[in-house]
Amino acid sequence: MKKLIYTLAVFLIFQGCSEQKTIDQKAAANRLMEVSREWAKADSKEKVLSYWADDAYFIGSGMPSMKGKDKITEKIEATGQIPGFKVTWEPHEAYVSENGDLGYLIENLAVTYNDSLGNPVTEYRKAVTIWKKQADGNWKNVVDINSADPSVTSL
Amino acid sequence: MKKLIYTLAVFLIFQGCSEQKTIDQKAAANRLMEVSREWAKADSKEKVLSYWADDAYFIGSGMPSMKGKDKITEKIEATGQIPGFKVTWEPHEAYVSENGDLGYLIENLAVTYNDSLGNPVTEYRKAVTIWKKQADGNWKNVVDINSADPSVTSL
Repeated sequence: MKKLIYTLAVFLIFQGCSEQKTIDQKAAANRLMEVSREWAKADSKEKVLSYWADDAYFIGSGMPSMKGKDKITEKIEATGQIPGFKVTWEPHEAYVSENGDLGYLIENLAVTYNDSLGNPVTEYRKAVTIWKKQADGNWKNVVDINSADPSVTSL
Repeated sequence: MKKLIYTLAVFLIFQGCSEQKTIDQKAAANRLMEVSREWAKADSKEKVLSYWADDAYFIGSGMPSMKGKDKITEKIEATGQIPGFKVTWEPHEAYVSENGDLGYLIENLAVTYNDSLGNPVTEYRKAVTIWKKQADGNWKNVVDINSADPSVTSL
């Protein structure tokens, strides 16, 4: 009887271990897509900035790359001064690691600003964003890179 | 005595589980840096292509993004025709997930080609590469994106 109990205990511990290690990667990827869409809808500077990790890398097309939230804050404030400036995106592919701690997204990005006559111009780009899950369960962006992509013509 | 043996067995299984889950993330990141450097030194088309996963994304600066090794092969063959074309890079930051299954690198990239007078011109860029560990233990590149970066002036 005792032997049975111990064997059962060993079995349960094994089960516990393997369950801890296996997350639903597809559900986690879908959740990450949602986080990206929520970010695109953020309606204040504070909300926009809240998605980047403190040591995040931002690598924009043709502008000097920057690391750290302070530098990213300056950039966000500067682009806020550009007439007609607006940026939005739509993720179309996501992947999350086995343990659910690291993930990435592929996104189509639209950057709009006014030309010298005041007419809005939209540039389409491809973006890749890399995310780390924080201790509190929230995802934070650690790498944000975009590149001009002539194959993207809408979101 | 039996109880002691079973308790020991339970303890060992616990140990086994936690060891399986915890890899040396720093050593894995260093290994990924090495893979990137080996790739930069690949001296044949076959060797160069062997680092991309079959469903890899390639997102180059200003050229249409592409998915899949067939399309990447065409691109590699086309760039091989550009006079004086040469690409090399140096990784400067790496991170690998808790389970060691997913990782990324930040790299400085140098693309060289001849101008219309036949003189070599080098453009510096920032690249982000994302990698998945295969069943055989090898890393394969799943996302490869680069973007013009005026802050990079050498490797």
